[in-house]
Amino acid sequence: MTTLHLADTSHLDILTHMVGAFRDEEGITSDEDHRRKALLPLLKGSPYGVIYLMGPLSSPLGYIAITFTWSLEFGGLDGTIDELYLRKKVRGRGIGTSAIYRLIKVLSQHGLKSLALEVDGRNQRALQFYHSTGFRLREHYNLMVMELV
Amino acid sequence: MTTLHLADTSHLDILTHMVGAFRDEEGITSDEDHRRKALLPLLKGSPYGVIYLMGPLSSPLGYIAITFTWSLEFGGLDGTIDELYLRKKVRGRGIGTSAIYRLIKVLSQHGLKSLALEVDGRNQRALQFYHSTGFRLREHYNLMVMELV
Repeated sequence: MTTLHLADTSHLDILTHMVGAFRDEEGITSDEDHRRKALLPLLKGSPYGVIYLMGPLSSPLGYIAITFTWSLEFGGLDGTIDELYLRKKVRGRGIGTSAIYRLIKVLSQHGLKSLALEVDGRNQRALQFYHSTGFRLREHYNLMVMELV
Repeated sequence: MTTLHLADTSHLDILTHMVGAFRDEEGITSDEDHRRKALLPLLKGSPYGVIYLMGPLSSPLGYIAITFTWSLEFGGLDGTIDELYLRKKVRGRGIGTSAIYRLIKVLSQHGLKSLALEVDGRNQRALQFYHSTGFRLREHYNLMVMELV
């Protein structure tokens, strides 16, 4: 089973690098300073989320960022997989699947009620991957968003 | 413009009642004790969200529950309209629209980066309502969920 390590501020550099690699791959422009500032609260104990490093701490294989919020309907904390990134070289070996099983176990023990994620419905590989680990599409429901300035 | 009042523990009874009316309407079974426990953290200053009462405090017309979480991409707090409920008698008068405009103003002032919500894509009235206030469908993206036990 892939080991998960709760990241702290000592992992800021390696995470800033990996988040940058993820953004590059997604075609999203990001600058280093912005990434550092975005990561820091989650490494400093913010109630809004945690980041886990996958694999050996000396050379992490990737990271999973989980954010938390409250569900009025369930009366408990809901989690969201905000980001999951694996270095290109180690993909296709079951590391992500194994990390998600481990994650489910850890988050359940912490009393989390449910875990959600957003997926591009055209990305069959991602849909199949998350389906195989137990996620189900929330049929008929759509997200609507408004940017605030 | 519809007035919004930040709810606190003194509004627990009226909110427990209104959340129950909302659940009844949605065909969701809920018991009073569970609703009270689910509401309480948001009335006691939890970082995960706030509840606004709409209209006069002596006789609220409805409520809006907003939850907060962190966005690693944006490096700031994201909000979600978790629930929006208006008493049946006062619907169709523009109260919800007006409340959302007020809400956007308040949340922007507090530095929120974006506001999201989940809508039943078959509910044309809800889609049109939120579209008219500035929300846009997040095309191609789907939610996947897993219940944890």
